[in-house]
Amino acid sequence: MAKMMLAAAFVEPGRIALREKPVPEVGPQDALLRITTTTICGTDVHILKGEYPVEAGLTIGHEPVGIIERLGSGVQGYREGQRAIAGAITPSGWSNACLCGCASQDGAGTKHGWKAMGGWRFGNTIDGCQAEYVLVPDAMTNLAPVPDTLTDEQVLMCPDIMSTGFSGAESGGVRLGDTVAIFAQGPIGLCATAGARLMGATTIIVVDGIAGRLAMAKRLGADHTVDFSAVDPVEEIMRLTDGRGCDVAIEALGTQTTFEACLRVLRPGGTLSSLGVYSTDLRIPHGAFAAGLGDNRIVTTLCPGGKERMRRLMETIAAGRTDLTALVTHRFPLARIEEAYDLFSHQRDGVMKVAITP
Amino acid sequence: MAKMMLAAAFVEPGRIALREKPVPEVGPQDALLRITTTTICGTDVHILKGEYPVEAGLTIGHEPVGIIERLGSGVQGYREGQRAIAGAITPSGWSNACLCGCASQDGAGTKHGWKAMGGWRFGNTIDGCQAEYVLVPDAMTNLAPVPDTLTDEQVLMCPDIMSTGFSGAESGGVRLGDTVAIFAQGPIGLCATAGARLMGATTIIVVDGIAGRLAMAKRLGADHTVDFSAVDPVEEIMRLTDGRGCDVAIEALGTQTTFEACLRVLRPGGTLSSLGVYSTDLRIPHGAFAAGLGDNRIVTTLCPGGKERMRRLMETIAAGRTDLTALVTHRFPLARIEEAYDLFSHQRDGVMKVAITP
Amino acid sequence: MAKMMLAAAFVEPGRIALREKPVPEVGPQDALLRITTTTICGTDVHILKGEYPVEAGLTIGHEPVGIIERLGSGVQGYREGQRAIAGAITPSGWSNACLCGCASQDGAGTKHGWKAMGGWRFGNTIDGCQAEYVLVPDAMTNLAPVPDTLTDEQVLMCPDIMSTGFSGAESGGVRLGDTVAIFAQGPIGLCATAGARLMGATTIIVVDGIAGRLAMAKRLGADHTVDFSAVDPVEEIMRLTDGRGCDVAIEALGTQTTFEACLRVLRPGGTLSSLGVYSTDLRIPHGAFAAGLGDNRIVTTLCPGGKERMRRLMETIAAGRTDLTALVTHRFPLARIEEAYDLFSHQRDGVMKVAITP
Amino acid sequence: MAKMMLAAAFVEPGRIALREKPVPEVGPQDALLRITTTTICGTDVHILKGEYPVEAGLTIGHEPVGIIERLGSGVQGYREGQRAIAGAITPSGWSNACLCGCASQDGAGTKHGWKAMGGWRFGNTIDGCQAEYVLVPDAMTNLAPVPDTLTDEQVLMCPDIMSTGFSGAESGGVRLGDTVAIFAQGPIGLCATAGARLMGATTIIVVDGIAGRLAMAKRLGADHTVDFSAVDPVEEIMRLTDGRGCDVAIEALGTQTTFEACLRVLRPGGTLSSLGVYSTDLRIPHGAFAAGLGDNRIVTTLCPGGKERMRRLMETIAAGRTDLTALVTHRFPLARIEEAYDLFSHQRDGVMKVAITP
Repeated sequence: MAKMMLAAAFVEPGRIALREKPVPEVGPQDALLRITTTTICGTDVHILKGEYPVEAGLTIGHEPVGIIERLGSGVQGYREGQRAIAGAITPSGWSNACLCGCASQDGAGTKHGWKAMGGWRFGNTIDGCQAEYVLVPDAMTNLAPVPDTLTDEQVLMCPDIMSTGFSGAESGGVRLGDTVAIFAQGPIGLCATAGARLMGATTIIVVDGIAGRLAMAKRLGADHTVDFSAVDPVEEIMRLTDGRGCDVAIEALGTQTTFEACLRVLRPGGTLSSLGVYSTDLRIPHGAFAAGLGDNRIVTTLCPGGKERMRRLMETIAAGRTDLTALVTHRFPLARIEEAYDLFSHQRDGVMKVAITP
Repeated sequence: MAKMMLAAAFVEPGRIALREKPVPEVGPQDALLRITTTTICGTDVHILKGEYPVEAGLTIGHEPVGIIERLGSGVQGYREGQRAIAGAITPSGWSNACLCGCASQDGAGTKHGWKAMGGWRFGNTIDGCQAEYVLVPDAMTNLAPVPDTLTDEQVLMCPDIMSTGFSGAESGGVRLGDTVAIFAQGPIGLCATAGARLMGATTIIVVDGIAGRLAMAKRLGADHTVDFSAVDPVEEIMRLTDGRGCDVAIEALGTQTTFEACLRVLRPGGTLSSLGVYSTDLRIPHGAFAAGLGDNRIVTTLCPGGKERMRRLMETIAAGRTDLTALVTHRFPLARIEEAYDLFSHQRDGVMKVAITP
Repeated sequence: MAKMMLAAAFVEPGRIALREKPVPEVGPQDALLRITTTTICGTDVHILKGEYPVEAGLTIGHEPVGIIERLGSGVQGYREGQRAIAGAITPSGWSNACLCGCASQDGAGTKHGWKAMGGWRFGNTIDGCQAEYVLVPDAMTNLAPVPDTLTDEQVLMCPDIMSTGFSGAESGGVRLGDTVAIFAQGPIGLCATAGARLMGATTIIVVDGIAGRLAMAKRLGADHTVDFSAVDPVEEIMRLTDGRGCDVAIEALGTQTTFEACLRVLRPGGTLSSLGVYSTDLRIPHGAFAAGLGDNRIVTTLCPGGKERMRRLMETIAAGRTDLTALVTHRFPLARIEEAYDLFSHQRDGVMKVAITP
Repeated sequence: MAKMMLAAAFVEPGRIALREKPVPEVGPQDALLRITTTTICGTDVHILKGEYPVEAGLTIGHEPVGIIERLGSGVQGYREGQRAIAGAITPSGWSNACLCGCASQDGAGTKHGWKAMGGWRFGNTIDGCQAEYVLVPDAMTNLAPVPDTLTDEQVLMCPDIMSTGFSGAESGGVRLGDTVAIFAQGPIGLCATAGARLMGATTIIVVDGIAGRLAMAKRLGADHTVDFSAVDPVEEIMRLTDGRGCDVAIEALGTQTTFEACLRVLRPGGTLSSLGVYSTDLRIPHGAFAAGLGDNRIVTTLCPGGKERMRRLMETIAAGRTDLTALVTHRFPLARIEEAYDLFSHQRDGVMKVAITP
């Protein structure tokens, strides 16, 4: 009989619950990872609320830190017992999208090799990692060994929010000497702030309404903090930039208000780098778009995955360039994950990220 | 007393009329160009209709071909009597925007050196070239000698529509082997088609509702033409691409419908390159944007100017890579320019571009 | 007992000979391709001469066109009997190099995931395709179905010389309006000429000493041909460019003379894109390098592989953008491949490429 | 009679001496800067030694910090009495090279608009700034006001070594998570180290033979220092990178040894970013170049100039991202500049940079 494990499964809108499930069978290209630490993402809350549809019964979670329990017959270059992470996005490596440098839109198995968001599988199209075990698909593409010098919590942000946040700065094309505004300083926005700082932005202005987040932003690299509950953030940013505006504005929330504010603070020729998950249509105001003649760019990015990305992010941490452990404000055993969801989804008690340990 | 000349001036919404004006004085960095051929642009029609505001009395027009009549005291490297063109956009060369590779947003003279659309001066903030003479500002940055082997009409599209259309393909990042859709095949869209072809797109699909324009698109490089009055262009493009969508979609009209259609035909990770001048807010439909997670890009471009750009475009024509003379469907002397506006603004008689000769 | 097949194997320097070998066993990620057409590459001649060392007994050849005979148990998305090609370079898809956009330097299986030229396996580190059958490794990454409308000979150049030649223009960053010189018009150089033309170069100058090759270059897109046996090519190119030099110079031979000539014809800020396989040290003359202050770039490229690359190249041919079939000057059955080597390695009878059919 | 000033002029090889010269006349596009602080560059030592030829009598020096004394009649946007710097490279803004994004190769006034190193005028083709006054050509392109919060010595490195050093990292394409080696930690190399750090390199390895320079490198961002007098730097870097090599190697000396070592420490697909001024031919060893098939890049960069570049560099300093004041190890009045040359050219007393104050 199959060995059983605990897993947090989507039951119905409003309900993610612990269930007993069989430990997955390991296919030739897979690896079975015994989860030692994982976390809950804002996207999981969208799933919980039914705003992002997944199949009932699916295990949620896409941020795995663990130990290799078993390797598929075709998986080489790893050993069982090794500590490893995988990205939230697990590209196949072999789809046309992957071979074209667009791995997050991985269309492995589709007719043409492209699929919107196709690289996001954990807790979306296959069982995720808020469980005792998770099956990592295309393991040789995705498993990244964790250096011994780093703790689980030090690398816990690599699979998603660090990769996503940093990509906001990268896709925005932040250059040495740039002025960058970042709207919203939740976990993703904070990582975007850290990323912009690491890439050489020299004026970093962040916007949020929560004092604790603005304080954390300062620690991670912001030069100026703007509390949108106290001032108009667009006006304030234009004042801080002496009327010039920003080279890059990063959207890290997923709302019309922040999207639009980003456009309004850009200098002519500037770039809006969008990370948010939107749940409505978006409006580009005529007055914030130079009638289409402003040489502006709007770029969106889905969290880059794959083992090379994970290696680079872990190297950034190992080198001491950034430290995101302070984002872990709460810790729960897997057995109490429903409690963790309750806390996290209601943003109580100054929670930023929770560590879940099976 | 100042020598006088004829010039087409904006009088009031609905009225552009020929007026007598003094031939301009030549400042140290200027050149006076005696216009031999010019044309009317879609933007001029916006001005005529009062949709784009300019000062009453301003001479309209931004596509000059002519002969150097007089050079400012500080202008070197040219000689009077030389044939030359200047781009529709006349960057200073010395603003911060120019020095940052964003010359069309030239903020020469502003506090910070950036100004939305600031490079567009002819017929917008200074007198334009639907006149017997035009003053070319920052002449050493902008005057481009015309090779003897090329006629006026061969280079007439360089200042604006060829530069703009080509930039649609360039800013879109068209690569060898790409599938590209271009929405609207007016003069700008046709030039975008030619540009996509020259950059190596291998499947070029164009959309318009006028048979003559679709036929011209075929001549300039389109592989497939889609008549939006006969089929749904989004469905048709998805069919033609076997469900994959386009690497790049170019918007060349400036409407919500075409903007949105571009988004809907993009493959995941694709780029919308927008050339249109919009007169309303734009809507990004949620369903056409992968909730912000599709690794998409939206880029806008204002016609690149400056003498090096003009040199390159003329070289493209001189080398026989493209021939845009067939776009000139009608010819008028400057004295009859009001008639030309009437024809062009009502799109009568299959007009594409008119040549105006003082 | 294993089924046997004919294969051209490296025996010793100076000798490639037909041998009987077992048809390979198909591993889970492999595909067995029955070769219908293949060809001989200049690199194979280096191997023949012992200038590039491979193991004795290895089957040579890296340009396969064939029919899928058998698919590995883990290979999905193809069907047996389907016509397909694979690139000369067969990246794994999952190495760090692949995931970093540098698939030709694929270090699959190495400690760090990078290996110089590691993506080149066929006829180098594994058996190649001058045989009745070839095993395609990492088949889902590498197998590209051939459109029914294209013949074997139409796609025969895709695996290597077309991919390599085009990459010379791509890595060189050829832009619309560029002036490009290409040194040597053997098969690779001719494809570089075609590639530069397709990407929008407007002045293409090619150099060779053989009239037939210069004539073919004209057909494929060259504007000017320079016979180095009649004139000094550097002087001639500087004359043709009126003293300015070239934006991009492509080296397609692999000698000091051509490498150096490329540097000498570059404009300040220009790019040398090198495709040649060098067998000696290279010298950068002080006088051709602006003392290191010329904002120059030297880029080298190994033939890009993978199924998406192959798809794009075949699309270029299917769309009629280029036609390389005229490069096939001679045809031999596999049984007479030793004769083909003799002809090809001595460059007799105006040979450009030979088609080999098992 | 013309007002006179002191200036350090090149007399003959081996001799730079103070001379009385007339204060320059101000042309329409010029600005006269009263120098308050300047410095001596390694290039000036090349001039002193006669290794780089300039005209006898020319004032040397290309790193001006000063106060605007007089503005040309055509210069707008500044006021006399304002503190300002200009880059070592003073592009015109209007040459074809400038308009093509290659301002350092500015060919203003030449037939084609390109000239190798043409942007370097101060102390090379026009009088430089080791003097009481210097004429800044094309002042609106080049004059950058200094923020009041910054001292002369804080911005003294902006005109040349900071701009050059940073460009080593920029042209090398340093990305977040990269491993970067920098050969030689003189002033330029140290700035390259600071630049690589600011752009997100996570493993920075520097090579020099002087303990003080290695210590300074640590302060500016190096993770590992390698003393080439104690260990073989290539072996040591390969050891430190666990055999993988570097993503980017920056050459900051201008010798065959360091150039070659850079090639030897690159990973496949890596980039050599060269900043050194070479005085001999260079050799690319066959074994360090993967026979031309390693997907490597060699890029050279001449110090970027222009007021926007200066603005960005000063912003980097104002934001506290880097502090280069510790490089100023010695101070001399202009009257004693010959002494300063003696100290600096012999690299005595741990000198890094000298501040010269008229």
